[in-house]
Amino acid sequence: MAKHIMEGFDRFLPYNDAIHIFDSIKWRYPNSEDTGINSSLNRISYTDVYSDYDIPEFNKSAVDGYAVISGDIISASINNPAVLKIRGCSEAGEKFSGKIGRNECIEVYTGSEIPDGADAVVKVEDTEKHGNCIHVYSPVKRDNVFKKGEDIYAGYKIVGRNEKISPQHIAAMASAGINNIYVYKKIMIGIISTGNELANKKIANSTGILLKNYYNNHFTETMDGGIYGDNTDDIITGIKNIIDACDIIIVTGGTSLGRKDKTTDAISSTGEMLFSGIAIKPGRTAALFDVNSKPVISVSGLPVAALISSLIFINRYIKNLYSFDYYSKITGILDENIHNKIGFTLFQICRTYVKGNKVHILPLKTTGSGILSTIIYGNSIAMVPENLEGIENNKDVTVYMLGDIKWD
Amino acid sequence: MAKHIMEGFDRFLPYNDAIHIFDSIKWRYPNSEDTGINSSLNRISYTDVYSDYDIPEFNKSAVDGYAVISGDIISASINNPAVLKIRGCSEAGEKFSGKIGRNECIEVYTGSEIPDGADAVVKVEDTEKHGNCIHVYSPVKRDNVFKKGEDIYAGYKIVGRNEKISPQHIAAMASAGINNIYVYKKIMIGIISTGNELANKKIANSTGILLKNYYNNHFTETMDGGIYGDNTDDIITGIKNIIDACDIIIVTGGTSLGRKDKTTDAISSTGEMLFSGIAIKPGRTAALFDVNSKPVISVSGLPVAALISSLIFINRYIKNLYSFDYYSKITGILDENIHNKIGFTLFQICRTYVKGNKVHILPLKTTGSGILSTIIYGNSIAMVPENLEGIENNKDVTVYMLGDIKWD
Repeated sequence: MAKHIMEGFDRFLPYNDAIHIFDSIKWRYPNSEDTGINSSLNRISYTDVYSDYDIPEFNKSAVDGYAVISGDIISASINNPAVLKIRGCSEAGEKFSGKIGRNECIEVYTGSEIPDGADAVVKVEDTEKHGNCIHVYSPVKRDNVFKKGEDIYAGYKIVGRNEKISPQHIAAMASAGINNIYVYKKIMIGIISTGNELANKKIANSTGILLKNYYNNHFTETMDGGIYGDNTDDIITGIKNIIDACDIIIVTGGTSLGRKDKTTDAISSTGEMLFSGIAIKPGRTAALFDVNSKPVISVSGLPVAALISSLIFINRYIKNLYSFDYYSKITGILDENIHNKIGFTLFQICRTYVKGNKVHILPLKTTGSGILSTIIYGNSIAMVPENLEGIENNKDVTVYMLGDIKWD
Repeated sequence: MAKHIMEGFDRFLPYNDAIHIFDSIKWRYPNSEDTGINSSLNRISYTDVYSDYDIPEFNKSAVDGYAVISGDIISASINNPAVLKIRGCSEAGEKFSGKIGRNECIEVYTGSEIPDGADAVVKVEDTEKHGNCIHVYSPVKRDNVFKKGEDIYAGYKIVGRNEKISPQHIAAMASAGINNIYVYKKIMIGIISTGNELANKKIANSTGILLKNYYNNHFTETMDGGIYGDNTDDIITGIKNIIDACDIIIVTGGTSLGRKDKTTDAISSTGEMLFSGIAIKPGRTAALFDVNSKPVISVSGLPVAALISSLIFINRYIKNLYSFDYYSKITGILDENIHNKIGFTLFQICRTYVKGNKVHILPLKTTGSGILSTIIYGNSIAMVPENLEGIENNKDVTVYMLGDIKWD
């Protein structure tokens, strides 16, 4: 009695072993490139960026009013106002050229340089003007001076290596006279879709479309590697066509247990298979190959499985390169139990939402890894390790966001 | 004794009144445009999008194995296996052309259409092949059929009006044969920078650069309206140059209490001033104008004040148009007290971070609205209404995110 064996998987590699193998390879990571700060938004900085200057570059007025010597008004009161002579005016961004003397003041505006000799600014609304003098009725409570280097001092680290560049970073770099910054090149992900049913246009390539849009963002970009039928030579050609231009390739389809197609043979003939079959749900049929020191990830043709199993390795690639996660994370309260089959690492699709000032996480029932509607209604993934039978409701859990948090 | 009055503000309008006035104007909102689904990522849908089809379009196998009539194997056991004749094979995405009879089966793959007559699929690993027959040793526990319409049924709403379009939405639209979608046009925000100190290049235009980058995203785009000195005619020309091409204009600078410049005069001469001065911190010098039924927002030249006071109205504009907030929000535990001056609505810069499975919110001390480093280290804003003296630590608060949540 011969056991029926279709082309299959002998065993499923534990998730941690798969990650360990992935991390052990010296992948050929992308280089950096020099870019103008105006093109750097949301890119990842390749270097620490320090300010060469103090910002502000000089002591500035923080209000509109009169720059004074604080000692001149220290005993000013309603009955005994200090009387100060207006010596001149300092425009915003400019400086009065002379020096202020005792019982003198200079009209200043927000951003004006504080004149030499002055140490405080009286707000205009706390003064009265009488001809060429002002009367001041109380000492200054605060000096209203925005001090040299108070915002960013010379040597301040404006952007750290591996940080995502924000609008705030760009504004600060501009203030510090920095025009260019080294950023990582975007990671180029090639997407090759396989399957006779796609090549014959019998069904829409929803998995390829999902991956293409998901990986088109600030960190990664995608290259369409084409659609091929279940034909080894065609798939080999497809991989060879784009491997030089890509940092990573995802090949969808042809991974199912009994599938007669030739995806694995094709990728194996272009490089080395590292493993095939991982103990994860969904996505257990994923395989990893090293082709010219670039990861080629073979994933299911079903959209949810393809997204999750590719994300695992692409996140790891980014974590090794940038030291942070591709996706954003959030913690919240689990609404319902999650059940897991021991031995498999579960990636549970959840809906993460805020209600009554708390972040809630609702695991969604899924009937298959082809269910797009689950990842439309759901927006996040909770991970359950292989040694746990699940997670109980009301526990705090951390989820990885696939979309925006909902407000119910 | 004449009270010294520089050109100023008689009073500060309460925040809620400012919002009420903003909402009462019939602004000329942008129209929709038809776009291919492949260009629709992160755009805002103008319409509800329904599927015309069931997805899957037919009953599909969820596994690799054999399609059977479940009644034929209901009493199968180890000692008394059901023996089924293999009638043929149904490729993925295809269908066996004949009809299955009693004690027959069809070889199927994940995604194959279930042949007529079959109602379940036995996994290949639960069978043994003997020549042209399979032996089955137990009834099916589940039918392993991915049912017609189980993912998305005909009439299912794939994307809702005013929803942000995700990669998942695009994949589902592709599956449903939808190629185009109506989306809102991006909101075009013109940015005009004023101030002699900028026009003379004495200081970097960090505020303009901050706004330009902040408002360049999926919902809004920006147009550089130029830098002008404190000259009424030049600023009028600047506004007239871009008002037709923009939906909103932000004018930075020239709002400070005693500033001698002419921004307000310039904007007033092109449209109607709705109010000037709002009881908010920072950003109290902001003013709102209606120019050709488009909001023109005059804001401080200081970056933090300019960002916060423009965000208030641009968020409101988006909320009126799309019914959701421009920024994302999150709730967390306040680490320290926030103090507020009664009568002013405070927008407190905070650092929002996750530690020990909890979202924490740390209010940052700021010494002025020009402090860029505060919004580099900080990433969020807590709002304190004008009638509250503050918020106590350990309370749950909701913050508006300016950047990514930190993981400390």
